[in-house]
Amino acid sequence: MNQVQLPFSTVITAEELKGFTHYEERKLSDMKGYFADEEARAAMEQSADQVVYQVYRVEVPPEEGELLHCLTVIQPGQVAGECFMTKGHYHLNEKCAEIYVGVKGKGVLLMQKGQEVRTIEMRENTAAYIPAGWGHRTINVSADQPFVFFSVWPGHSGYDYQRAVEEPFVKRVYLRPDGYEVK
Amino acid sequence: MNQVQLPFSTVITAEELKGFTHYEERKLSDMKGYFADEEARAAMEQSADQVVYQVYRVEVPPEEGELLHCLTVIQPGQVAGECFMTKGHYHLNEKCAEIYVGVKGKGVLLMQKGQEVRTIEMRENTAAYIPAGWGHRTINVSADQPFVFFSVWPGHSGYDYQRAVEEPFVKRVYLRPDGYEVK
Repeated sequence: MNQVQLPFSTVITAEELKGFTHYEERKLSDMKGYFADEEARAAMEQSADQVVYQVYRVEVPPEEGELLHCLTVIQPGQVAGECFMTKGHYHLNEKCAEIYVGVKGKGVLLMQKGQEVRTIEMRENTAAYIPAGWGHRTINVSADQPFVFFSVWPGHSGYDYQRAVEEPFVKRVYLRPDGYEVK
Repeated sequence: MNQVQLPFSTVITAEELKGFTHYEERKLSDMKGYFADEEARAAMEQSADQVVYQVYRVEVPPEEGELLHCLTVIQPGQVAGECFMTKGHYHLNEKCAEIYVGVKGKGVLLMQKGQEVRTIEMRENTAAYIPAGWGHRTINVSADQPFVFFSVWPGHSGYDYQRAVEEPFVKRVYLRPDGYEVK
């Protein structure tokens, strides 16, 4: 793949990354098996296959020294009380960290490494550091607003979604009348 | 140096990076020879050795896979009309890119690679990509407000400030009654 030759810029908004080159979305039908109550997810999908999250990305080469970056918008919603969230993944390259910056709304960054679990509550302008080797998933804990964040990670990180399936996150996040609960 | 073992977070504000571990500032007396009118700079320094810019940084290992990051605050001000700016540098590792995100105010990101020069005007939420190999300097083009931006760069980038002295930026940025001029 070619190097990024010329400087460029995008604009971060609460809805999208203006100037993005790649767009992906994950609907309820893409999230089979990710929520604790699979029956509830399937029933929701039948009724309306809602978008759970959207990713606006800029294509730069997936190589050492480059910085991949994207804007993620997690819609508000729950599956039997469990908050909408990303699938979550590990980096294939265990040396590669990641930085998240909160743009809008209220989210929880859930991280796991072996038996260790950590959470960071994220608001606008929270800058969270995910050290190398930690699996990471993000959860929207607002009842009615999207949670939006900007991410930067090394070009040679790679993605391991399968590991997040085989070693599932041991904590889940539920919406509560007075906020949210991690359990 | 030890690896960053545990996830952590900071908070980006218009004044500082809350949770920073390292602080540096550059005053007029640190900027000898950087502005076109050195005599005017020296006279200003005699009168009041103002802060030109401040850098709030978090210590992570300067190694491949880690992501160094900081918040830079460039004060408003000019030396004989030339806007306050960072010294500017190249990365020693020519594979390493950098990302800037505007936080507050109005700035210009000036980039140079050999004979090529590029500028990107930055406002709050502009995300600018500095490709590998490009020297970069940032300039505050507001008459009265600080320009604040967040930066992320690979841990193994290294810094070459000397090259920016030996191959000086060929463009300079001046405040004008109706905005600014790059010349």
